[in-house]
Amino acid sequence: MRAVWLEDRQLRLRDDVALPARDGEVVVRVLLAGICNTDIELTHGYYPFTGVPGHEFVGVVDGKRVVGEINVSCGHCEACRAGRRTHCENRTVLGIKDRNGAFAEYLTLPRENLHEVPDSVSDEEAVFVEPLAAALEIQQQVRVTADDRVLVVGNGKLGRLIAQTLALTGCRLTVAKRGVEASALARRFDIAVECTGNPDGFAIARAALRPRGTLVMKSTYAGNLNVNASSLVVDEITLVGSRCGPFAPAIELLASRKIDLRPMIDATYSLADALRAFDHAQRPGALKVLIRMA
Amino acid sequence: MRAVWLEDRQLRLRDDVALPARDGEVVVRVLLAGICNTDIELTHGYYPFTGVPGHEFVGVVDGKRVVGEINVSCGHCEACRAGRRTHCENRTVLGIKDRNGAFAEYLTLPRENLHEVPDSVSDEEAVFVEPLAAALEIQQQVRVTADDRVLVVGNGKLGRLIAQTLALTGCRLTVAKRGVEASALARRFDIAVECTGNPDGFAIARAALRPRGTLVMKSTYAGNLNVNASSLVVDEITLVGSRCGPFAPAIELLASRKIDLRPMIDATYSLADALRAFDHAQRPGALKVLIRMA
Repeated sequence: MRAVWLEDRQLRLRDDVALPARDGEVVVRVLLAGICNTDIELTHGYYPFTGVPGHEFVGVVDGKRVVGEINVSCGHCEACRAGRRTHCENRTVLGIKDRNGAFAEYLTLPRENLHEVPDSVSDEEAVFVEPLAAALEIQQQVRVTADDRVLVVGNGKLGRLIAQTLALTGCRLTVAKRGVEASALARRFDIAVECTGNPDGFAIARAALRPRGTLVMKSTYAGNLNVNASSLVVDEITLVGSRCGPFAPAIELLASRKIDLRPMIDATYSLADALRAFDHAQRPGALKVLIRMA
Repeated sequence: MRAVWLEDRQLRLRDDVALPARDGEVVVRVLLAGICNTDIELTHGYYPFTGVPGHEFVGVVDGKRVVGEINVSCGHCEACRAGRRTHCENRTVLGIKDRNGAFAEYLTLPRENLHEVPDSVSDEEAVFVEPLAAALEIQQQVRVTADDRVLVVGNGKLGRLIAQTLALTGCRLTVAKRGVEASALARRFDIAVECTGNPDGFAIARAALRPRGTLVMKSTYAGNLNVNASSLVVDEITLVGSRCGPFAPAIELLASRKIDLRPMIDATYSLADALRAFDHAQRPGALKVLIRMA
């Protein structure tokens, strides 16, 4: 089949990738997939993945449209037994770790990972279920109320999704671009969410927090962060790492039409033009770029 | 009066320090004071303080023995109005920030900062109220249950205090020295408390946590920490900075005799020998060193 292939940090289009097949899993015909910053970070060496990237998708199984949770868990390790299946010690992750992903004509996932998409949700919206679930994970971890002053640092794809989901809480929301003067925001916020994909965003979020504030870390990127640990202790700051979230509420939110994601789509490319799609997604200020498989 | 004086990271004993006096504050005659790692870190440039260090003490006011909360707050800034007085934006801190401390014959504090010491608690125990309160702050911030596997990294003064307070919860407690092989503890703990006063301790605590675990940061020291931010995101780790804690429960705990701090005292020096006391406190493995003023 045709697919995008990542190897040695280089992307290329291949027509000779084997059709995916895994025991006990379902073959999904991919309709549409979205390019996430994590896909771009993979080409920068964030994680040493070789194979088909892509983990935001909508596809078809048995004539029904589905989206899929990206972590495939073993079910018997300590994390799985404790109910933390997205943290399974033996997990594979669609298009990220030991499992070919969605920039391909077909992929496989266990049936339990799949969620049917209601007719009222378009393909273009359904492709946002995975990042929308990741945005909603924040509210699984941190209580956000209407009284809270909340700063979202980063107004890219993920930042905008997060801002839209946080706005539903009625909180006092500010969105800052990376590059904003940290002093302008200094020590005012109860909660700051870092989603710039860059260590600079952390510094802005940190400086914006009041003592005993909470900094939610949402970006993954290659390289380390240099942190003043003592200041975290003195100000009793809480940092919360946040990754994948719940699919069902994300699908419900799209079906309820409480948020509108269509303005977030920059362009849609065919699979034949997938490398151009990646170039587009890496332009400064680019929003979501989609790849349609057929 | 006689006092220890810190200036340009150097300690010396002075006999000509002015008697302390501040409007609206109470003069406390100091009986006994303890050397904390923060005092030693001040001589390493952790914070640019000039004056009398020392913030763990028991003293006498109007014939009654007292201990004192070390943060003096303004009462009208945003943090004070929100009830976070230890985070007052205009605070002074005994022996640490803009306020002479306890390695002196006298100090001053507002009356509201003082807590009377019950007769059943000795001077040697009372001097531990401040660090014991700091240890108890952990349980104000993080729920610790009997089911939790908890690692304390650091078996120095603060680590031992913290271990004793955590043991009261019935949790499954392990204490590790700095220098332990991180791999021996890998990914087993629900909660890890870093109190080595050293970035190495952070790495051990981090490696010991299971996904979605909580790392409590209790050390202040000069210099920065190099952190793999993406791993915090992927494992959804929570970091919690933790500083000063509640005095009343610390005094109650000492009065109840549920913990025994006397084995933690290495030596007691006179104020005349204060510099020798500091030398002793910096020996590897040294526990609490006290200075008696009279």
